[in-house]
Amino acid sequence: MLIVHKYGGTSVGSLERISSVASRVAKAKNSGNDIVVVVSAMSGETNKLIEFAKHFSDNPSKREMDMLLSSGERVTSALLAIALKEVGIDAIAMTGRQAGIKTNSFHTYARIESIDPKAMQKEIDSGKVVIVAGFQGINENGAVTTLGRGGSDLSAVAIAGALKADACEIYSDVDGIYTTDPRIEPKAKKMDYISYEEMLELASLGAKVLQNRSVELAKKLKVKIVAKSSFSDAEGTVIGEENKNMEAVLVSGIALDRNQARVSLRDVSDRPGIAGEIFTKLADEQINVDMIIQNASSNGLTSLGFTVAESELARTKEIIDNFDHDIGGKSFDSDICKVSIVGIGMKSHSGVAATAFSALAEENINIEMISTSEIKVSMIIAQKYAELAVRTLHSVYKLDA
Amino acid sequence: MLIVHKYGGTSVGSLERISSVASRVAKAKNSGNDIVVVVSAMSGETNKLIEFAKHFSDNPSKREMDMLLSSGERVTSALLAIALKEVGIDAIAMTGRQAGIKTNSFHTYARIESIDPKAMQKEIDSGKVVIVAGFQGINENGAVTTLGRGGSDLSAVAIAGALKADACEIYSDVDGIYTTDPRIEPKAKKMDYISYEEMLELASLGAKVLQNRSVELAKKLKVKIVAKSSFSDAEGTVIGEENKNMEAVLVSGIALDRNQARVSLRDVSDRPGIAGEIFTKLADEQINVDMIIQNASSNGLTSLGFTVAESELARTKEIIDNFDHDIGGKSFDSDICKVSIVGIGMKSHSGVAATAFSALAEENINIEMISTSEIKVSMIIAQKYAELAVRTLHSVYKLDA
Repeated sequence: MLIVHKYGGTSVGSLERISSVASRVAKAKNSGNDIVVVVSAMSGETNKLIEFAKHFSDNPSKREMDMLLSSGERVTSALLAIALKEVGIDAIAMTGRQAGIKTNSFHTYARIESIDPKAMQKEIDSGKVVIVAGFQGINENGAVTTLGRGGSDLSAVAIAGALKADACEIYSDVDGIYTTDPRIEPKAKKMDYISYEEMLELASLGAKVLQNRSVELAKKLKVKIVAKSSFSDAEGTVIGEENKNMEAVLVSGIALDRNQARVSLRDVSDRPGIAGEIFTKLADEQINVDMIIQNASSNGLTSLGFTVAESELARTKEIIDNFDHDIGGKSFDSDICKVSIVGIGMKSHSGVAATAFSALAEENINIEMISTSEIKVSMIIAQKYAELAVRTLHSVYKLDA
Repeated sequence: MLIVHKYGGTSVGSLERISSVASRVAKAKNSGNDIVVVVSAMSGETNKLIEFAKHFSDNPSKREMDMLLSSGERVTSALLAIALKEVGIDAIAMTGRQAGIKTNSFHTYARIESIDPKAMQKEIDSGKVVIVAGFQGINENGAVTTLGRGGSDLSAVAIAGALKADACEIYSDVDGIYTTDPRIEPKAKKMDYISYEEMLELASLGAKVLQNRSVELAKKLKVKIVAKSSFSDAEGTVIGEENKNMEAVLVSGIALDRNQARVSLRDVSDRPGIAGEIFTKLADEQINVDMIIQNASSNGLTSLGFTVAESELARTKEIIDNFDHDIGGKSFDSDICKVSIVGIGMKSHSGVAATAFSALAEENINIEMISTSEIKVSMIIAQKYAELAVRTLHSVYKLDA
């Protein structure tokens, strides 16, 4: 089997940790697999380099930031190759360029355009463990680019896709994806398997493990991800394609997003296009609107509610104030949160949402907004009920069973 | 004018120092010159990375060491570009690869094979200051290589040659080349000009400024070097081609090498080839022999003396012991040093050496070995007379005038 391993910053955060990773990789190689390893910079290193740059400029050149930041992953990859050779495993460190990773030219948030796996494949075929500096590639002019947040995960998934690897194991300090946040519900269980679609909807549960961009890419390239801990030998969670067994499971997990604020607009002129104008203006300012509800119009007036990230509420308020002549009344509330139940099984089962509504009602939790998709039901509730709601839903769907 | 600047580790040893270098480069650029800057890693950085590698292996893979060590210069080049842009100077950071530097494949001590200056020239023509990560290039397979000790100086001189620059200014924490070591002779004077040949012979005086490999390359490429301090605005020393004025100066400088040991062999069989056998064996063991003298043979026996680096005396002794059947007596002495007087003017003036011998004799300093070249006279004397000999010679040739 050909397995891609990816180790994040905390997994390679010290020389001792790199030794530990070398042992893990050596064991995987010695059990007969071909191994490609993608590494992040040692934790703290990237932040240190950013601080260095900020010493000189509040807005440093992005092209130069990429040359600066890409150095951290190179250091880790070289050190891991040296550590592996010392334990008798032949290994070769490769930069993004040497691994054949071509990106577009959007420095600091480039997208991978293609991977030519020939150079990696040649080293794999000669029996070597290939260690690739994550987070980086080169553009058509040969300039170094970086992939932005979660970039090493993207490198790993893209490389696994290009090499048609059997799996892409993403190592972090968390041993998998849980049915909900264990800090809120200690009975939360680690999932054995979850579909790409569910993982995308449960983003907040996977936030410390891998980002949505990587899951989307894995889905597109049909790369099987295994989220594991580099600090234990626990099994981890497989993230892969939907399968038949999954439909038997109504709900896979409960996600909580506290970083939400609600905007309520009453008595909005029901002239055509007013909602469009408001949301266009928000989009122009890069403010991401999550849930939107609009009530049926009466008397030529309508009411409009939506949520934005709590951190963007102030900017949102400024924009809304410009529409005062079209809006009768408005309120802003950041004391709310979003609780979501996610599960592939919902597709073919009715009544899943009703169960949630009843369960929350029994606890006297008022649902302020609802939005549903094929595999998710999200509810806005008062912030103070966040933990109670998560535990109630976790229990009613028997996720602790 | 097109000027190449090179800043060593102490010159870019902190963020404040990098700011100071940015000011200096900005001033040079604003006075109407085109500037290319070659930078070393921040001082301490390379040693830190070497320590990291040694944590894993006593003999780390050289290919991986190159990927590791080349990262330090990349960091400095990106930071300096960011600092320059902030003070309004357009700048672009380039790796060795991007600057077109191709080397052979001897990792950790590669030699530059060619420089394609087109990419640098294009950026210069567009008005940018080009900042090149020193010490590195790529080989024909695209692997990163480094150039060994003094590598950034080599990068700078080679780039100056490829771009046909008007000068290559090498900045360090020393403001030029002195007529002798000022710690021994406080009257030592900074030279305004010195020829490549003299500089090569005075290696020990330039040791903290630039290495012989760089001087040799500059001589070959006819690159004018200016050795300057990045900590002051002093003029520095020009190292260039021999010129007519120079012949008027008999002696340019006095060098002292304490790292010497003398081997004396008596009653050596005068059979053909014995000296050759000894020196071949030493060369096989990578022991560099400096001075050699052999006395005329008598009674089929001869005496042979030579010097090696003090640090290699123990290994030399082992080798000599294997020739015991051919050698009547032997002695080893590390309490010696080598004093050299160097000057282009010697070529056309006789009596220069005689002046040295008389001056030392007057101080009762016994000269144990002598070797001469066209522009140098080297003398082995007892270590205890080192400083006295240097001051005596410095004075007798009026270098303090």
